[in-house]
Amino acid sequence: MGSGHGITSQGDAVRTDPQQPHGSRIDPYVDVYAARARGMIASEIRALFAVAARPEIVSFAGGSPYVSALPLDVIGGMAGQLIADHGSVALQYCPAHGDPGLREKICEVMALEGVNAHPDDVVVTVGSQQALDLITRIFADPGDVLLAEAPSYVGALGAFAAYQAEVLHVPMDDNGLIPEALDSAITELAAAGRRAKFLYTVPNFHNPAGVTLAAERRHRILDICNAAGLLIVEDNPYGLLGFDREPLRPLRADNPDGVVYLGSFSKTFASGVRVGWAVAPPAVRDKLVLAAESAVLCQSSLAQLLVREYLCTQPWREQVKIFRDLYQHRRDTMLGSLEALMPAGCHWTRPGGGFYVWLRLPTGLDAKAMLPRAVSSRVAYVPGTGFYADGQGAQHMRLSYCFPEPDRIREGVRRLARVVEAEIELRETFGSGGTHGNLGVETPGPEVA
Amino acid sequence: MGSGHGITSQGDAVRTDPQQPHGSRIDPYVDVYAARARGMIASEIRALFAVAARPEIVSFAGGSPYVSALPLDVIGGMAGQLIADHGSVALQYCPAHGDPGLREKICEVMALEGVNAHPDDVVVTVGSQQALDLITRIFADPGDVLLAEAPSYVGALGAFAAYQAEVLHVPMDDNGLIPEALDSAITELAAAGRRAKFLYTVPNFHNPAGVTLAAERRHRILDICNAAGLLIVEDNPYGLLGFDREPLRPLRADNPDGVVYLGSFSKTFASGVRVGWAVAPPAVRDKLVLAAESAVLCQSSLAQLLVREYLCTQPWREQVKIFRDLYQHRRDTMLGSLEALMPAGCHWTRPGGGFYVWLRLPTGLDAKAMLPRAVSSRVAYVPGTGFYADGQGAQHMRLSYCFPEPDRIREGVRRLARVVEAEIELRETFGSGGTHGNLGVETPGPEVA
Repeated sequence: MGSGHGITSQGDAVRTDPQQPHGSRIDPYVDVYAARARGMIASEIRALFAVAARPEIVSFAGGSPYVSALPLDVIGGMAGQLIADHGSVALQYCPAHGDPGLREKICEVMALEGVNAHPDDVVVTVGSQQALDLITRIFADPGDVLLAEAPSYVGALGAFAAYQAEVLHVPMDDNGLIPEALDSAITELAAAGRRAKFLYTVPNFHNPAGVTLAAERRHRILDICNAAGLLIVEDNPYGLLGFDREPLRPLRADNPDGVVYLGSFSKTFASGVRVGWAVAPPAVRDKLVLAAESAVLCQSSLAQLLVREYLCTQPWREQVKIFRDLYQHRRDTMLGSLEALMPAGCHWTRPGGGFYVWLRLPTGLDAKAMLPRAVSSRVAYVPGTGFYADGQGAQHMRLSYCFPEPDRIREGVRRLARVVEAEIELRETFGSGGTHGNLGVETPGPEVA
Repeated sequence: MGSGHGITSQGDAVRTDPQQPHGSRIDPYVDVYAARARGMIASEIRALFAVAARPEIVSFAGGSPYVSALPLDVIGGMAGQLIADHGSVALQYCPAHGDPGLREKICEVMALEGVNAHPDDVVVTVGSQQALDLITRIFADPGDVLLAEAPSYVGALGAFAAYQAEVLHVPMDDNGLIPEALDSAITELAAAGRRAKFLYTVPNFHNPAGVTLAAERRHRILDICNAAGLLIVEDNPYGLLGFDREPLRPLRADNPDGVVYLGSFSKTFASGVRVGWAVAPPAVRDKLVLAAESAVLCQSSLAQLLVREYLCTQPWREQVKIFRDLYQHRRDTMLGSLEALMPAGCHWTRPGGGFYVWLRLPTGLDAKAMLPRAVSSRVAYVPGTGFYADGQGAQHMRLSYCFPEPDRIREGVRRLARVVEAEIELRETFGSGGTHGNLGVETPGPEVA
């Protein structure tokens, strides 16, 4: 494993189907690929995730929203009517910029957090993952430096790697990105004659770290970036999913010209429609539209009109509250179970919203090495190494509480605690099992969004 | 125009909205963009297309399928039921490879043309435009050469330009790509110490040229590429929309290891769902899946399940026949009108299927220079220059007969003929109005898909 033939989501690296008209194991194009494709290697944890999808396993790996909490009948009726009445538009191409009516509604959604944007400056994308891809496409030449929190969202790291950008991680603490560390990183780069193309940050309910950038730090971060002429890419899929207080003011709200803001309906409505967006200063927005055209021609009209109709006709704010309450209950369940069951030496974050707890194992334990044992004990998580571009994270894991029901969360933490205890015993008896190096960015698949 | 602030699809390059919180006309990021983004410039014909969308104008510019011919009530009912019954899957993330059930149905669709593919080798994409983007992403480094027909689909040229590939055009005639010209191009490249990464070709009902690669040429093309170790990217969105005979056997059918085949439901079902696919040899397919993940995480489950359900429950072969008959009637109308009305010195192709007629103006006339006059005479087309990477095409235009009703086609050709006649008179009186140079690839927008 690890190069050439990747493990597919079915886990079958070796092809044995006799129906298959061509089964060469040697890749005749190995010398023909672009340089950027050489780093496109299936993660070795991918096969494990295929196993982890089995119903007997409690998976804390996935970042899938609990879409079953939506009124599926109502949404079905709405979709049916939309196609019957407006199918000649909903089933047709549309401008790459995105449906104007949807862009207006997106501005209403962002206004809830204090962002005052014009619909012209919104570009609709295939989930916010496409916005990450396009923003990297227009800014990053191979070898360019991008700043990103340590850890960072695995999908962002995947997009950065696809354009051969170099990631310099900036530390966080329980209050999010550390301004002094950002300042130092910029200074160090400048001393080396380099300049980052942008800072990538998830200020609210961070994926995977579960922390939130403190309000008092936000202006400091803006000031630092402003002074350095550094563009900020603010990724905010979870902003409306805060449990304990009103949404914090996004960075974009206080510097429209210096921030590209990314939003998504994946977590507040439905991930399966793949509708996200970017808000960007006009010149950047124009490039994003052209880049989107060459990437996908245009977004799905059907998906866009469905979201627009949902926002226009359904009580979507109340639905967000239903999601929020549901995830809050699951967070409470997970934190309570961790508190009650995890052995000493484990530490974890206490998210004020979103989907994720970030757990540090006792010294000497390796989350990636432990994963196969966890999966055979019927519990799964994402090892921390996937969230760093530089090999850090072996001692960490991301635990998602968004999808499993509370009973399953309790059972999953119970299983996980036993696995960790067994690892600690093993380590005490035989010493460390050794850590696994991490060679570049791995892509564990969309299941870990 | 032409750099910096592009013309948006609304045609408002200058921002005058006082609500707008930021209105700087100077792009502060002009020195920060990646090299590839410097070529991302809105076409100057984009603003004209915004005008051409007005109802009083007969537009031969768009490549939009006539989706109103679909049974919209039935599809609406089907979509509603799908979400009500299976919303927890249809509204959720899915593997980047694509829905397995849809991939099986895609193999059935391709079997109609003689392609024997395994569902594992199909990757579902956001329209076949995304497949073009991903295949270029994994193969083309900046400066790499790609071979493409002269002319070529504008969206493909846009994708190639986004990855800074160099396009070498290979001539066609009424029987499609000329094998001897392909052979010469490969030989010339080899003499210069270069090797193309792939050949891009649309063998059936070419966009924009309207011609079809003759059956007897297909094996010759395969042999030439095989001998040169040259991958073929076969783009076949119109294959099932042939009017006069059974589909020709795709290149992929006779060389599964040497051809990446691209298909789409945009023309046989609905462009607004954005569902296309690539079929590739296993190693290439694995890279495509990883590239798709970093680009969009995954395709829309809703779109995929909707297409799957459509193929499983609806008489889709009969619907393709309805489309075929409808487009055949429109082609006949257009060819008849051109024959009756166009002045001497105009030449055009006679497509056996698909959406497009490719028209050459009399010597000395320039289709791009003439477009504003055509639009003020209430008829629109796409000037030929957009379909070449090297400045050719000024004397050509693409006329799409897919969307306007037959009466409108007749009226549009009447208007166009008068515009051309007036141009000829002008030229005879004052000499040529001069041709416009073409600087790189222009992107006239998704309306010309």
